[in-house]
Amino acid sequence: MRDQVIAVNRAFYDAFEALDADAMERCWLPGPEAACVHPGGPWVRGSDEVMASWRAIMANTDYIEFDIQVEAVHVADPVAWVACLERITTSGPGGTAEAEVAATNIFVLGSGGWRLALHHGSPVVRPGPR
Amino acid sequence: MRDQVIAVNRAFYDAFEALDADAMERCWLPGPEAACVHPGGPWVRGSDEVMASWRAIMANTDYIEFDIQVEAVHVADPVAWVACLERITTSGPGGTAEAEVAATNIFVLGSGGWRLALHHGSPVVRPGPR
Repeated sequence: MRDQVIAVNRAFYDAFEALDADAMERCWLPGPEAACVHPGGPWVRGSDEVMASWRAIMANTDYIEFDIQVEAVHVADPVAWVACLERITTSGPGGTAEAEVAATNIFVLGSGGWRLALHHGSPVVRPGPR
Repeated sequence: MRDQVIAVNRAFYDAFEALDADAMERCWLPGPEAACVHPGGPWVRGSDEVMASWRAIMANTDYIEFDIQVEAVHVADPVAWVACLERITTSGPGGTAEAEVAATNIFVLGSGGWRLALHHGSPVVRPGPR
């Protein structure tokens, strides 16, 4: 089950890399419970709003690549979460840029398999407080 | 059970407002599964490191007050999560400052009640992508 969760977590990033909104939508739990924070942004709630936010991001992205470092996986059927570090490379007319984003992804197991209920991404801009 | 989760979510912010590290420690799941992101920071993992990060933050905070807007609560016993917006007021020698942080708090129910397994806070610095 842990492997399933890691696989669906990877499928989410594959959909983003492919800039494939349909594949992204298949990763998400449909309905009002879906919730998302994009780096620096506020809460986006409900799968319609969440998918609108992904479509807007994809429309403004030429190329994006993720190197995902899984920090922790916790499975408590029917819920699981993955804490990971996204090492992101983007490129566009202005050149190539790299960034790091800390992400929490919460999945719920239903008839359609594990679906993303919550994604929270935040920019990593400083070392920890120690 | 939803009310219990909202209460323990509030207890976490009460501990932070009181700058009370012992009360904060009682909110957290002990052990290696605990994980935390402070705004702008990387993953901090394991309850020892998580508590060290809170002690460092508390040592550098004179006054902090939270107005918590709960955006979503999901309970799937033995796991629950709260998505919330933290409206923060801090004050110190430099004056008073206000900030908004989007937070995901994941709780696990054990013999000690609901304990925080993951806290992810991120600065809200821009409107959503729509």
